Amino acid sequence: MSRAAKTSTPILSVLAQRWSPRSFDPTKSLTLADLTPSFEAARWAPSANNAQEWRFLVGFRGDATFEAMTEHLSGWNASWAPNAGAIVVGMFEDDPENKARDYAPYDLGQAVAHFSVQAHADGLFVHQAAGFERDAMAAAFSVPESWKPFVVAVVGHLGAPELLNETLLARETAPRVRRPLDETVFTEPFPSV
Amino acid sequence: MSRAAKTSTPILSVLAQRWSPRSFDPTKSLTLADLTPSFEAARWAPSANNAQEWRFLVGFRGDATFEAMTEHLSGWNASWAPNAGAIVVGMFEDDPENKARDYAPYDLGQAVAHFSVQAHADGLFVHQAAGFERDAMAAAFSVPESWKPFVVAVVGHLGAPELLNETLLARETAPRVRRPLDETVFTEPFPSV
Repeated sequence: MSRAAKTSTPILSVLAQRWSPRSFDPTKSLTLADLTPSFEAARWAPSANNAQEWRFLVGFRGDATFEAMTEHLSGWNASWAPNAGAIVVGMFEDDPENKARDYAPYDLGQAVAHFSVQAHADGLFVHQAAGFERDAMAAAFSVPESWKPFVVAVVGHLGAPELLNETLLARETAPRVRRPLDETVFTEPFPSV
Repeated sequence: MSRAAKTSTPILSVLAQRWSPRSFDPTKSLTLADLTPSFEAARWAPSANNAQEWRFLVGFRGDATFEAMTEHLSGWNASWAPNAGAIVVGMFEDDPENKARDYAPYDLGQAVAHFSVQAHADGLFVHQAAGFERDAMAAAFSVPESWKPFVVAVVGHLGAPELLNETLLARETAPRVRRPLDETVFTEPFPSV
């Protein structure tokens, strides 16, 4: 079954094909070398004043970092993410006193987007999740107070949907939907949204 | 002169080649059709709970929207951006009462990243800028109070660097730099950053 986006106009294949599965192959492993191109893509993402206010902590299934990360995932994420080859925790520096840092979460989003696009080009899949205990994750890895673990990017090889329970299987196979472009892009003063 | 990123390992060409110029060709125009693939790429970006909390206002050089946008650019941006074919103002819904909206700026970052990658694949260049008067921009386009104009993405065809004044020319041609990966990606508890 193809999960490619039903785009209204052709776009880059890697962008149309990318999607966020919950089913990862538990028999396949990853190493830092496998993810280096993805991190390199993130590295070259643009950022406000080229501040690059992002850091990544990565664990690989089988190592202590990965194990500790899985303990702080919430809800459903704790059931499917441990099958993946790697978990990346994306962080930004959160400094309310520093106005320039206003763009730190935005720029982290750009960096993880570049990461995900490169990963997909390399035959991997990424599912980003917000469902994890931020404070516990920060404590587990001695993250300084000013840094905020903000996103968990679960990375791996695609697994069979049947690995999922019924509820997750339904989500995994549901049609992919997005709001139409004409409700998103405007050329004149703002309509009601 | 190539501005391609000096990556430490090969990555997708479109990601390595993408950069953010200030020199845009004032003789070339853009239409909404030219940017539709880029907006479509943004449309299919991932977001927390698939909330897609982004909206885009776009003006094209020569129209009233573009003209009004250029009036609210700050500093240097006001000197180079008007040569571009289009300006896109990216917005997210800012609702401090709604915890789920926490990811709105992050997700806007992802959407604009996808936009920029597609634009580059289509032979266009994007320079994102934070330097604009947010409140004035919001007022000019009747943006509801809960929505926040957050980024200006200047889009167009690459122009000759000589279009820029001396200060901007120096920036335009300076080597592209990023922090090394080993100061960005960690596999163990957080080092000093």
